[in-house]
Amino acid sequence: MNINTNKFNWKQGFTVGFCLQTGMSDKVISTKRNLSDMRGMYFDEAAAEKLTAECNPLIYEFFETGAPEKDSDLAFGTSITYPGKVGNEFFMTKGHFHTILETAEVYYCLGGCGYMLIENPEGDWSAQKLAAGTVVYVPPRYAHRSVNTGDTPLVTLFCFRADAGHDYGTIETKGYRKLIVEQDARVKIIDNPKWKKK
Amino acid sequence: MNINTNKFNWKQGFTVGFCLQTGMSDKVISTKRNLSDMRGMYFDEAAAEKLTAECNPLIYEFFETGAPEKDSDLAFGTSITYPGKVGNEFFMTKGHFHTILETAEVYYCLGGCGYMLIENPEGDWSAQKLAAGTVVYVPPRYAHRSVNTGDTPLVTLFCFRADAGHDYGTIETKGYRKLIVEQDARVKIIDNPKWKKK
Repeated sequence: MNINTNKFNWKQGFTVGFCLQTGMSDKVISTKRNLSDMRGMYFDEAAAEKLTAECNPLIYEFFETGAPEKDSDLAFGTSITYPGKVGNEFFMTKGHFHTILETAEVYYCLGGCGYMLIENPEGDWSAQKLAAGTVVYVPPRYAHRSVNTGDTPLVTLFCFRADAGHDYGTIETKGYRKLIVEQDARVKIIDNPKWKKK
Repeated sequence: MNINTNKFNWKQGFTVGFCLQTGMSDKVISTKRNLSDMRGMYFDEAAAEKLTAECNPLIYEFFETGAPEKDSDLAFGTSITYPGKVGNEFFMTKGHFHTILETAEVYYCLGGCGYMLIENPEGDWSAQKLAAGTVVYVPPRYAHRSVNTGDTPLVTLFCFRADAGHDYGTIETKGYRKLIVEQDARVKIIDNPKWKKK
């Protein structure tokens, strides 16, 4: 069970704050992912090793409220992906499918800019633009990863069916089909040479 | 089907804007509820009749995106309840249960202030405080109504399971157990003398 679950009255209702500017919560403890928590996920492994040794930067954190894992309930919280690059690849979240694949997710961007990179098992993919005041609809069956292509934190509020679950393993094993990188001072979406079909 | 459904690619993902200040959308047509659409819902019927005849004010509007009504998908959008009173009762939404009673809803307040008034069929109720940057969790089984007790529009982003459905009839017939009114220049929550047990 999430460490935040027992803070809230899931049966009778409650309120919880998430700053409209920073996404930070007044009542929830965040989960932090530093670069060392993402070994093998960035294309340029030498750059990743070097940066990890130098300062092991915080790549992202998320404030999840710990909803009961039932189809009647909703999980929600905020996610903050920090600005930066590993080699020429922009800071990003691990990305995941839902364990119950046929479940959607809604992201509302509160600040920053970047992309929600989505792909389904059949190979359909897109990069949905995130900017303040934009909802990205992640349909059922699509893995999703936030990528910060800007200079400020990319802040989103998320919501999904509370029994959906997280499948991180598929992405950790196969990788994503696409990378979002800086080339010639521009943001480019390129094929991931390391992506594994099976 | 909602008039906005076909604007969006529910199968492959999409983006849609909702202004962080006003809640207004760039792609969605809102549904508007003027006072004449809420006959019998305010306690002071004489005040309601008079105000309807005078100017029939816009009480609230909501931008709903028209998600496919499936348990794999999520319905989302924004709701804007305007400031004002009918007699001494603050402007509010109709309020509703979900048709599938065992489904929750998440509201994130973008601006304004007021309450989410919630009650379940067994009689448990509460008024959850809405302020900018606050999530209200409406648990499964609870009817919910936004009440604007401030001087500016009360703006929320909402999300719920897309098959949940809306049961407005129960509230229209029975009313809510509680009213939120101004008394002696203060906001008070009082029993609804017109509430019907059956």
